[in-house]
This record gives sequence, structure tokens and C-alpha cells, in this order.
Amino acid sequence: MIERDGSHLIGFFCDMPMVGSGYFGMVQMGLLAACRKAGCELVVKAFDLQSTDIPEQIQSLIVRSPLLGVVLPAPLCDMAELLQVLHAVGVPVARIAPYSEAGTTFDICIDNEKAAYDLTAYLIGLGHKRIAFVKGPPDHGDAKARFVGYRKAMGIAGLPVIEELCVQGMFDFNSGIVAGEELLSVKPLPSAIFACNDEMAVGVVAVAHRLGLRIPEDFSLAGFDDSPLARTVWPELTTCRQKMDLMGYLAADFLIDPPAAPEDRKRSQDHDLVIRQSTAPVRE
Amino acid sequence: MIERDGSHLIGFFCDMPMVGSGYFGMVQMGLLAACRKAGCELVVKAFDLQSTDIPEQIQSLIVRSPLLGVVLPAPLCDMAELLQVLHAVGVPVARIAPYSEAGTTFDICIDNEKAAYDLTAYLIGLGHKRIAFVKGPPDHGDAKARFVGYRKAMGIAGLPVIEELCVQGMFDFNSGIVAGEELLSVKPLPSAIFACNDEMAVGVVAVAHRLGLRIPEDFSLAGFDDSPLARTVWPELTTCRQKMDLMGYLAADFLIDPPAAPEDRKRSQDHDLVIRQSTAPVRE
Repeated sequence: MIERDGSHLIGFFCDMPMVGSGYFGMVQMGLLAACRKAGCELVVKAFDLQSTDIPEQIQSLIVRSPLLGVVLPAPLCDMAELLQVLHAVGVPVARIAPYSEAGTTFDICIDNEKAAYDLTAYLIGLGHKRIAFVKGPPDHGDAKARFVGYRKAMGIAGLPVIEELCVQGMFDFNSGIVAGEELLSVKPLPSAIFACNDEMAVGVVAVAHRLGLRIPEDFSLAGFDDSPLARTVWPELTTCRQKMDLMGYLAADFLIDPPAAPEDRKRSQDHDLVIRQSTAPVRE
Repeated sequence: MIERDGSHLIGFFCDMPMVGSGYFGMVQMGLLAACRKAGCELVVKAFDLQSTDIPEQIQSLIVRSPLLGVVLPAPLCDMAELLQVLHAVGVPVARIAPYSEAGTTFDICIDNEKAAYDLTAYLIGLGHKRIAFVKGPPDHGDAKARFVGYRKAMGIAGLPVIEELCVQGMFDFNSGIVAGEELLSVKPLPSAIFACNDEMAVGVVAVAHRLGLRIPEDFSLAGFDDSPLARTVWPELTTCRQKMDLMGYLAADFLIDPPAAPEDRKRSQDHDLVIRQSTAPVRE
């Protein structure tokens, strides 16, 4: 039984709209598995990121329920105010997919830029040149890094990044619908679309079905995450797998069994390209 | 700020495989909203239902973290041993979708039998006669009640319940795939399939796509729950909506602000038929 300062409670802070997502479910599974193994308990707290009293809410939580530590997923893990409050009260923080440097935290991430680069390079290798990109939320570190990776791969292959083919998304299904409607009305069609998470890619699939466009015959489509949605949609999505349950597990493990050496405070996980039916060589 | 016996912690117990599901995400959203409103915190605990030391795990949790109460979703809410342990330690219990009578608990449910009856009657009203049914887990109260409702509607319409067309599922996508493969190899095809939750219905959709069968042209398909999956799949699913977030909210509210009168310890929520593109009149 692991306790520190008498606590066996691990906090998991999130923003409310995230709770229903496949990403959240997978991370939480990993957190719960780590808690079960160590005899700890998970306290899940959803914030409204627009509210102004988040520091007070955290203070109130910690006074009443001392926490062994707190796990912060993106985008909360890059909110300076949140990090300051937790640092001030002396609660250790493990961050999942941070973009900023914090110095005092335990960080677990994948190399999002490299992963997006690899996926884009795979599409280029299939002969695609007009490759569209659906971006994630502007304040989300993963989203920014993926867009950088896409542009880098295009640049190295000597392919233009066409502004009209890079559209804004918000990591949710509905914004994928909007992005799909935008991209699939462009003439000529992009020959491939890389939506930088699976929920948005599934939105693009829905638009394609509605318009009578076939994937991958009319255009190839790739997502990112390998969330459960990537396998329940038809055709199944080519995507980049980040092991979200493992990342949750390791984040909790950082708090339960903190590494002594400063250089061990950051762990980078591998990513895998998962090739399924939604991508194919470009048609002549 | 709500506390009882000094506690502001509400427990939410579940079995691990449930954590990734849309149903779980929706219920948890409602729980978190109720907690936020009342200044409470949510402790999520995942059990391996096969393990033999669940009573000890609960004892250990409650000794270290006194709980205001515990929310139990199905199928945990019908496990007599669990209910006994919680009753013995004096922790109030709110159950979501219970099948059994417990007497001492707060219960929130929908009328699953009536809901499945209504959905089946709707399919019959479209002219369907060969209506297949994908069952849920044998130990799950909701699943049992939905099968009863289906059989009742078929019986009242004078339609036979054909054993070959009633197949076992387990409420997850993979069991929906297996059920779909089974039902879509029957000759002649069932003219409609009622899968008694959305995750299984989406599995049937995947099999149909793979076999080149069109929904609803070749057969109609209905699910149950109106989970987020019902809208992200193509075609979008006709389904029966239970407001899972509201049920989570009300379950937490039972613990935060318990009703005085015994007759108010049970709340039944309405259900709605949600008609989308996956169902159509039978083809002659």
C-alpha cells in the first residue's frame, strides 16, 4: 500500500468535454490499472476551463483530500496557472503530452512531430501529392506538433503546403464534419486527408458517405491516436497509435514510485503506424 | 459544500472493461457535473469482477477514505455480495439501471422492457416481420428486460420469435461483429436487426459494409442507448435514447441530497425513440 503524507489518492484533472472521448477512456483505464496495482484510488475532477476560480477549487480539494499527486493531460498540463497552484501546495504533477517545459513535473509524451512526419511520409510514399490536413485546437501542444511534422514532411518531399487544404478542427467529431465538408468541396479533391486525431477523421468519413465518395478509392484518409473509434468505423482507419492506456499507467506510476534521477523525470513513448483500409496508393 | 460524516467523496464503482465505453463516459459526465455543483469529488474505482477479495478492497477504500455514498452501475448494482458489504459499513448506495430489488438503495432506471417493446413495435410498424435480436450479457438486467420487451412486441403482433434470429452478444463492438456475421449469413436475411445496445449495432454495421450489404436498403438496423457512437457511424443509427448523463447526475444527487420519503427512493426516467437513417420500411 503506497502512501505519501498519509495519502493514497491520485488526482486526475480534465476539462469536461474531454470526458466522453475515447482518448480519455483509454488514459483513465491505464490510471485505474496503476491505482489498483498500488492500492491507490483515483479522484477524477472535471473543470470548466473558462471559470476563474480554478485555483480556489484546487485548494479546496487538496485541503479536504490530500493527494499523493495529480495527473494532468493536455491541454491542462500546459496551463501555467494550474501548474503554479499545484507547485505552491507541493503536490507532485505527472503530465501527459505536455508541450511546455515545466522543470518540476514528471512528463510522459510521444514525439508528435516525428509521428505526424512519419504518417505524412507514408502517404507521400503511396504517391499522394495533394495531401490535406485537419488541424487540432490552437492551444493544444500535440496538435501544434503534428502540424509541424506534416509541414516538414511535405517540405522535404518538395510538395507545397496549400493553405486551402489545411483546415481548423477541434479534436471532436463535429469539427471533423465541418472540416470534411470544407475539404470535400474543393476541386480537384485532395487525394489524401490527414486528420490529426481519429474523432475528426471519423467526421470526415461521415461526410464522404453522405456525398457518395468512397474511401480509399476517391481519397485516402488517415487519423491519429488509434482510439477505439478507428476500428469501429468503416473503412477502418489508418492511424498513428499512441498507447494511451500505457501513458496513463506510466503517469500514475511516476507519482506512485517517483524516479530519483532528474533525467528520468521524462519518458518518451514509441508510436506505431497502423495501416488499415482507409489508405491506398494514389490513382493515376 | 455538502459533507456527511465529514466526507465529500462520492465513489463510482465499475468493472474495468466498461471504462472505455461511450455509456461509461456519458454516465461519468453526469456524475462529475453533479459533484462540481455540490462541491463534492468523484472517486472512480475499477474492479476485476473475477477477483475474490472485492469485499476487502471496499473495506480498505472506505477505512482510508470515508465516502458520502457509492454509485453502482449495472451489472455491479445487482451483485448481492457488493450490496451487502456496502450496507454493512453503512455507506448509502445509488444504483443505475438495477434489475433486482434491494430495498435499502436509491435506484434510477428506465423501463427497459417498455423501451425495447416500443422500438420493436416501430420496426413492426414499418412492415418488418423477420426481425432479428442481438442479446446482451446474460447477467445484465437491462439486457434481460430488453429481450423480454422484444418478445412481447413480436407476440402481440402475432409474429414468431425465431430462435436462429436471436443471437448472443456481450454489449461490446466485437460481440456485435460476431453476431452480425451470424445473422447476415442466414438465408433469407432478416429484414431488420435490433441490437440491444449501440456498440453491438455498430459491429453489425461493420460486417454489413464488409459484405457489401446496404443499410437500410438490404436490412434495417436499430441499436439502443443513443451513445455517441450512434451518431458517428454511417448510416446514423435509429436507437432508443436513455439520458445516461442525466442518470449519472441524478444518481449522485440521490447521495448529495437524499429524499426523505421512501417512495421517492426510486426514479424512472423516460426514454425516446430516435429515428435516423438506419431503418426504413420493409421492401416488398
